[in-house]
Amino acid sequence: MTGPRIDGARLLGRLQALGAIGRDAEGRLTRLAASDADRAGREAVAGWMRDAGLEVMLDRVGNLFCVWQAGAPGAAPLMIGSHIDTVVDAGIYDGCYGVLGGLEVVQALREAGVQPARPIAVAAFTNEEGVRFAPDMMGSLVHAGGLGVEAALATVGTDGAVLGEELARIGQAGPHEPGFLRPHAYLELHIEQGPVLEREGVPIGAVATLQGISWQRVTIEGVANHAGTTPMSMRRDAGLAAARVVTFLRDRVSRANAPTVATVGCMAFEPNAINVIPSRAVFTVDLRDPDEDRLRAEEAALSRFLDELAAAEGVTIAVERLARSGPVTFDPAILRAIEDAAARHGLRCRRMTSGAGHDAQMMARICPAAMIFVPSADGISHNPREHTAPADLVAGAQVLLDVARRLACGETGVPAA
Amino acid sequence: MTGPRIDGARLLGRLQALGAIGRDAEGRLTRLAASDADRAGREAVAGWMRDAGLEVMLDRVGNLFCVWQAGAPGAAPLMIGSHIDTVVDAGIYDGCYGVLGGLEVVQALREAGVQPARPIAVAAFTNEEGVRFAPDMMGSLVHAGGLGVEAALATVGTDGAVLGEELARIGQAGPHEPGFLRPHAYLELHIEQGPVLEREGVPIGAVATLQGISWQRVTIEGVANHAGTTPMSMRRDAGLAAARVVTFLRDRVSRANAPTVATVGCMAFEPNAINVIPSRAVFTVDLRDPDEDRLRAEEAALSRFLDELAAAEGVTIAVERLARSGPVTFDPAILRAIEDAAARHGLRCRRMTSGAGHDAQMMARICPAAMIFVPSADGISHNPREHTAPADLVAGAQVLLDVARRLACGETGVPAA
Repeated sequence: MTGPRIDGARLLGRLQALGAIGRDAEGRLTRLAASDADRAGREAVAGWMRDAGLEVMLDRVGNLFCVWQAGAPGAAPLMIGSHIDTVVDAGIYDGCYGVLGGLEVVQALREAGVQPARPIAVAAFTNEEGVRFAPDMMGSLVHAGGLGVEAALATVGTDGAVLGEELARIGQAGPHEPGFLRPHAYLELHIEQGPVLEREGVPIGAVATLQGISWQRVTIEGVANHAGTTPMSMRRDAGLAAARVVTFLRDRVSRANAPTVATVGCMAFEPNAINVIPSRAVFTVDLRDPDEDRLRAEEAALSRFLDELAAAEGVTIAVERLARSGPVTFDPAILRAIEDAAARHGLRCRRMTSGAGHDAQMMARICPAAMIFVPSADGISHNPREHTAPADLVAGAQVLLDVARRLACGETGVPAA
Repeated sequence: MTGPRIDGARLLGRLQALGAIGRDAEGRLTRLAASDADRAGREAVAGWMRDAGLEVMLDRVGNLFCVWQAGAPGAAPLMIGSHIDTVVDAGIYDGCYGVLGGLEVVQALREAGVQPARPIAVAAFTNEEGVRFAPDMMGSLVHAGGLGVEAALATVGTDGAVLGEELARIGQAGPHEPGFLRPHAYLELHIEQGPVLEREGVPIGAVATLQGISWQRVTIEGVANHAGTTPMSMRRDAGLAAARVVTFLRDRVSRANAPTVATVGCMAFEPNAINVIPSRAVFTVDLRDPDEDRLRAEEAALSRFLDELAAAEGVTIAVERLARSGPVTFDPAILRAIEDAAARHGLRCRRMTSGAGHDAQMMARICPAAMIFVPSADGISHNPREHTAPADLVAGAQVLLDVARRLACGETGVPAA
């Protein structure tokens, strides 16, 4: 093996340092988008970017970039990105690994004296998690033109705050119009957040597709009545109807022998009293599939089941669509470059589907894009127990470096922008 | 028809007046046990008792009695009782109808110049609903010797208050030892809180049995994981397991062609996030049956199912018993007296089972007891829409009067205490 190498200690040190920012009194990590903790994290990242001699830029929706101005004048940049906002009580790798991995790649290439044919930008997109402000992946969505900047800035958070006001308050509302950097290609390095790589003992995932995601909220209205005095045959039990949906989804999806996944994550009964038949059940349905036709078929099957259920149980059912994104197919030439790089380093690599949403799915709307995954211990993420072995983190960043070098030096089949 | 008649207008007026006490700013009726609203309700009822020339007494656990001292010296009293504490956002009839109906019966008998062979007491038992302090039916349970007075007074409420301190604060901790009035027999007039009488067009229910009640809290522990990245086969989904319990109970009980009822009224998922597989589900199971053997069989079937489910879904399941009472059989001689009284007034009457718990089930431990039910519109109770037609309320109280007169004058087969 020859060529530039990333500095693993520097990368791992920055991951730990960023992961220490935004801890509460109990030590829990929470850096919600456009919060004071987010500001502190952004300032640390921007500081490292400047220390590396790179120009830092902010756009109006708070997307943070550093740019290595290189190559031919006017050439579209290669962009490497992810996010540094977190969920509540988060781990330290989700998103941060991609941003700090990108910065490490640029720094290592510069230090090795590589002369790329185009600029390389590193992006930290605003509000990928969508915990405080909806929708998630907001910054990259705005960058890709899928949501207007004014609409994004007017978003009201779960705490009543307005995103635009919060970005201004924390000094992260920049001058640039979103989308001002139109990439030649986009790369994102991320922990898998699932168990596949660890289970198979494979250190590198070349993410070929990203599942389509369908989020719905279902509200079932029955009739509250006394649990002791209402015969079973006279009940209109919203809770029972909700349970039938949960078991229907599991049984249908498990039988199908397809990669579809279905989850009911939120559930609430009203009045939620031990001796009262539930009058109302509200729950969410998260359906994902890498195939759009199959995802639509699952949505349709659920809809038919709800119609039958309403008639059978004497309840009324309302469905609200919360989010919907179609599957994404990543760029085959970049995928081959990932596989080549892994092979050159003696790392096993498999093509895979991402079950989670990522900024890369938004960027794939405007340029060739792909993702590199590394294993997540026990498949756990969005949790303090989120963990990837240091050797895997370093290996993933090295593969990213090699792919970035080929893309920025024009050595792949990705056509020039 | 001859004999003393109750004053329907007086009874209905007092029901409305008591129902106006304990309203919040939105007009919702809530008189939780030993609250300021409960004090106001108790003072109104005690005032009406004194206005009727009756002696008012309180025991140490706050049970409120008025006694018409009549008949042979030392004769055990006939007791007519219920409660005036309510659930949150309650109707005006549950409990109050029994207390005010009892007071109306005593007043009407006195005004008619009836000379009973024994005293007649009217009881308003403390904390029948059990919303603020557990267990429910506490005052009658203490009166019947099923719970020590010190233990009851030490009960800590959902708001952290101690029952004994609250009773003292509202001036309702009396001097008498609970159980000081040992009844000859006990009668309770109550709304059905179920749909049976209304559906069949029958105005009077002679309650022959009261269901055994089993309350359990089930906690299922699975593993939280990402909803998009965790294959269905690798999930340990506490929410799915909870849904399987809900559908199991419904399907089993509905198939059985028995009077068993099963309800899952409370349900909570953790972390309760749309894109996270639930790590924990906590829910309640309310099982009721008038037959103790069948109730035990249902409890055992649930327990077996939970064992199988834990193994099948890779979850752990813990069960906590919250409450358990065996079925109660009421006194056949009093039931015949109820049927006779209904017939004399030309009112259809049916024997029935009470699905709800009542103070009468505690009093049945120490004396012959029975209950009279009147129809509930749409079977609704524990709700502002709780309603019984005025004519039905008056008819039920008239039947109570006739039965009370026969019991207090020694005209039934109920043996002297």
